Amino acid sequence: MTTDAACSLLTIDLDAIADNWRRLRDIASPATCAAVVKADAYGLGIAQVAPALADVGCSLFFVATLDEGLRLRAVLPQVDIAVLSGLLPGTAGIFLRDRLIPVLNDLGQVARWRAETTKAGQNAPAILHIDTGMNRLGLDPQEASRLALDATLLDGIDIRYVMTHMACADMPSDPLNAEQLERFKAAMAGLPGLKASLAASSAIFLGRDHHFDLVRPGAALYGINPTPGKPNPMRQCVRLEGRVLQVRYVDSGEGVGYGASRRFSRPGKIATIATGYADGYLRALSNGSLAHVAGHRIPMMGRVSMDLLTFDVTDLPEGLVLPGGLVELLGDTYTPDDAAHDAGTIGYEILTSLGSRYARRYIGAGA
Amino acid sequence: MTTDAACSLLTIDLDAIADNWRRLRDIASPATCAAVVKADAYGLGIAQVAPALADVGCSLFFVATLDEGLRLRAVLPQVDIAVLSGLLPGTAGIFLRDRLIPVLNDLGQVARWRAETTKAGQNAPAILHIDTGMNRLGLDPQEASRLALDATLLDGIDIRYVMTHMACADMPSDPLNAEQLERFKAAMAGLPGLKASLAASSAIFLGRDHHFDLVRPGAALYGINPTPGKPNPMRQCVRLEGRVLQVRYVDSGEGVGYGASRRFSRPGKIATIATGYADGYLRALSNGSLAHVAGHRIPMMGRVSMDLLTFDVTDLPEGLVLPGGLVELLGDTYTPDDAAHDAGTIGYEILTSLGSRYARRYIGAGA
Repeated sequence: MTTDAACSLLTIDLDAIADNWRRLRDIASPATCAAVVKADAYGLGIAQVAPALADVGCSLFFVATLDEGLRLRAVLPQVDIAVLSGLLPGTAGIFLRDRLIPVLNDLGQVARWRAETTKAGQNAPAILHIDTGMNRLGLDPQEASRLALDATLLDGIDIRYVMTHMACADMPSDPLNAEQLERFKAAMAGLPGLKASLAASSAIFLGRDHHFDLVRPGAALYGINPTPGKPNPMRQCVRLEGRVLQVRYVDSGEGVGYGASRRFSRPGKIATIATGYADGYLRALSNGSLAHVAGHRIPMMGRVSMDLLTFDVTDLPEGLVLPGGLVELLGDTYTPDDAAHDAGTIGYEILTSLGSRYARRYIGAGA
Repeated sequence: MTTDAACSLLTIDLDAIADNWRRLRDIASPATCAAVVKADAYGLGIAQVAPALADVGCSLFFVATLDEGLRLRAVLPQVDIAVLSGLLPGTAGIFLRDRLIPVLNDLGQVARWRAETTKAGQNAPAILHIDTGMNRLGLDPQEASRLALDATLLDGIDIRYVMTHMACADMPSDPLNAEQLERFKAAMAGLPGLKASLAASSAIFLGRDHHFDLVRPGAALYGINPTPGKPNPMRQCVRLEGRVLQVRYVDSGEGVGYGASRRFSRPGKIATIATGYADGYLRALSNGSLAHVAGHRIPMMGRVSMDLLTFDVTDLPEGLVLPGGLVELLGDTYTPDDAAHDAGTIGYEILTSLGSRYARRYIGAGA
């Protein structure tokens, strides 16, 4: 049974993602290059994306939650998997059993992991997260100082890396970047002999002094521009095509969609597409996005509905848009970053919002 | 295996949804009351919601797509299921096999359904959709006139209802409402003997002349206020609780989260929650939403991250928010409509965006 004929279509290029990883690895070399595959690989499918990255040499993956870690472990039995949300009470046994690496976010988690691993007779791995200015997760300056004064607090834990995370790496001129870098170096000076990791996607492009021993790209793997304001060095890997349900003529003066928020000032033609905000096509794009058909731009007209989009196809050659056909909603011409700009958000949210009602197709060597 | 201890928690009250349906049914009586369960029952789970509604007497369900229809058919073998996106080329066989009712959106679909049902030797049901001003889906005025002139175009089809959909029913004073009502009555006059359906949630509250033979509530079932600007007559049915990952002290002058978009002007305290825009907590809520802990309001501080939220808990009594605990992100106090207001959208999008990383719990008789 397939109902593909009635679905919108999401195509994900695993070769492009693998290429992006190799490019980032080469830029960061000799630092190790991990891959961030949290949030279902930024909405693109961890069960397909992670194996494609493992195939080209990635051996350390970051996920956000314990559940994501378990899901990835089932897909890739051998790789290293780090869980960013940390070691919550009652979860240590699961981490040990499935060989997941907790990112320890405070001294309480350090102590708990130490006790558990000692009890289990293992020198189990962990990543230590030091906050340098995000104020979101990680050891605060006081805790980092305590650790520097008493390194025995880490006894029995195999600390693979000490990591921090930058708040403004996509804005190279922000003074917080230099501040975080200095704070991190100071913290590392108090933890001699340990490996360090600071850079996610954007910071990889801030130069060699940001690479340390490990880089952790996420967004850039998936084609989001890590250098906003400059040309995007990454390949696009997503193509979203919406199924045409109807093409209709509309009289001059008539409105389109809820609230009749936009009206035709001439006789017009509307193509109605089987995609809506329930598919993650953000409602903030109402009256403000573009689609493409055979190289022609078509502007959205009307509000984004739950299951439907309406585009103005008045100026398109007759017969180019027909019921059952497809229009391109995201792709090389109108990228997730472009849609993010029009929706007042970031490309990350465009990707992670991609819904479950699409027929998903994977292309590339790993597919 | 459960990792609930590390998850945010979404509780869905099936009794509240069933109560809402009964309330709408009573208001619309003697019209029949259907239920719109498209987009996975507005994000709340069609496999749980639809049976709960069937248990209290609902026997006609509307979904958006053919795939949703098939999914619901597998759950409820006996009820009537109508598919709003219509009869796309190549799908008639699936509709017939699974006894799904297509909503016919143009005369081409009417002709195709007629040919298929004749071929199959059935007098198969359909719903006819006439557009009266949305200009999104449905027969346009010219097509409706052709049908009025030649009723034989419907021969061999069991037209259960003729439906239309209103663009501004949530704004009772909008002149388009009266216009659509008149156009619909005129269209029905040309189709004598057929049953009619106009009202979705909001139009049910516009009075008896809007009820016709069938009403089709969606949003109101799920607690969205169908009468904006007036008290909400519906029960809330969603409670979203975010897991606390960390509680941290922040110095005066320090920023929180990406871009350090908000800074403390005094020493403060932040609770970091394991929910983010990848869970459908819209990024548009950055620095602009509320959560609740034991009756205390806590304001968001900083941007919504992919997997994390940060709330200012400086003024909370010590010990009320602890790692592993929960804060209420959505519920009776801060409803989906409230979050929608803060995000600049509608409650519908707040619900349909609810993601898959929550531990979901159903409560109520149907659970």
